[in-house]
Amino acid sequence: MIHSFLLIGQSNMGGRGYINEVAPIHNEHLLVLRNGRWRQMYQPVNPDRVTSGVNLSESFALSYHKDKGVDVGLIPCADGGTNIDQWCVGGLLYDHALYMARLAMRTSTIAGVLWHQGESDSTPERFDAYEGKLKVIMESFRKDLDLYDVPFLLGGLGDYLKDYNEPISTHYTKINASLIHYAENTPMTGFVSAEGLSANPDNLHFSAAALREFGLRYYEEFKKLEDKNKVFTEKATPDSAIRTELEVL
Amino acid sequence: MIHSFLLIGQSNMGGRGYINEVAPIHNEHLLVLRNGRWRQMYQPVNPDRVTSGVNLSESFALSYHKDKGVDVGLIPCADGGTNIDQWCVGGLLYDHALYMARLAMRTSTIAGVLWHQGESDSTPERFDAYEGKLKVIMESFRKDLDLYDVPFLLGGLGDYLKDYNEPISTHYTKINASLIHYAENTPMTGFVSAEGLSANPDNLHFSAAALREFGLRYYEEFKKLEDKNKVFTEKATPDSAIRTELEVL
Repeated sequence: MIHSFLLIGQSNMGGRGYINEVAPIHNEHLLVLRNGRWRQMYQPVNPDRVTSGVNLSESFALSYHKDKGVDVGLIPCADGGTNIDQWCVGGLLYDHALYMARLAMRTSTIAGVLWHQGESDSTPERFDAYEGKLKVIMESFRKDLDLYDVPFLLGGLGDYLKDYNEPISTHYTKINASLIHYAENTPMTGFVSAEGLSANPDNLHFSAAALREFGLRYYEEFKKLEDKNKVFTEKATPDSAIRTELEVL
Repeated sequence: MIHSFLLIGQSNMGGRGYINEVAPIHNEHLLVLRNGRWRQMYQPVNPDRVTSGVNLSESFALSYHKDKGVDVGLIPCADGGTNIDQWCVGGLLYDHALYMARLAMRTSTIAGVLWHQGESDSTPERFDAYEGKLKVIMESFRKDLDLYDVPFLLGGLGDYLKDYNEPISTHYTKINASLIHYAENTPMTGFVSAEGLSANPDNLHFSAAALREFGLRYYEEFKKLEDKNKVFTEKATPDSAIRTELEVL
């Protein structure tokens, strides 16, 4: 039985932590979707760029597995640099994530959605409309995937952005305010603070150590929101069960 | 205008060439599909496993671009170790590849399909039924994606497999015979010989240098089959055109 999580957003959900800065997480109960099938999790979990690295979902998944004793599947669909308009309903990223989620649902049950995005909208022209756009997208994912009973977790942008370039350095706090306001006013939706988390030298991306910690915070918020009575069933397809000798090669 | 290619099969289409053994191919006109959108091509093109490396489509795409002067897009959907039953119509891998192709077709035109698979079917129990199963799958891809006018290129299994383990070492020639027979009897379908190509020390995967050469051979076969009158049109979606400053980060 696999409990799965959809990973969506921009580069800090993709994960840009330097792989040599933290110990890798190896656990046969942690899985990642590749070509519609589950593989044991490996880095980078979300290979959206040549710079993809440590991802916050790794420590999240390990905490979930340790707590519940089930297999955890990650559905990586984050794409670096993307703004909220690129996540519009019916767009390429939205439809890609929707289809990956549907493919994953043939062999797992989605237990939550992890979102981290907003740096690309931290501008004077864009921050104002952010919450309204986010609302439409999140409501659409809930409806299209029938995810009304699982937590959607929205991570905050890092404080270190104050040391990044304009206009992000003076506008990221507006995006955080929008994420908090949306989460506080939406059922089964939580905000995960990035307060105090460190950055890579670029002051744009969370460090590997910060992503490990951020994953634990996402899980703490998950526990506050989850429906403990949610039913998970065993799922399989005839082809998902086939394993060849060469499978891992 | 992007001319795109669907990459399907098992590990030797995924690509396991050691990245440090050949010079990388950097060209802004070579693209790879990530999350439904086009990125400049980078290695690994097909990140199906932690061992993914050099892929034969890299030199194929470069040859195509040099010849035609257009952007070339790669749609990586190969999955290591998979046998022909796992590619069954309506299965996870088939549906994943179909959907990635459809997503790519919103912003490109598919110019061909590159297939390399069969090691996992090189057994006494499986080789006999291989050609029949392959036929059903290829016909279905042509129909579902309306690809009747583009080449499907089927690569041969490497001679070095004679030095791999039983039963592959004595049965891979039966799969090659099936691939040749199917290609010779099917319109717009070509067989690409792997004769003389070298392996990694595992005697299972083509070396990086061999994959560079194999890509050129795929392209030679492509030129024999292509419909030179095929019309390619400019395609775009509103969200595919959005580029943010953070896009590459």
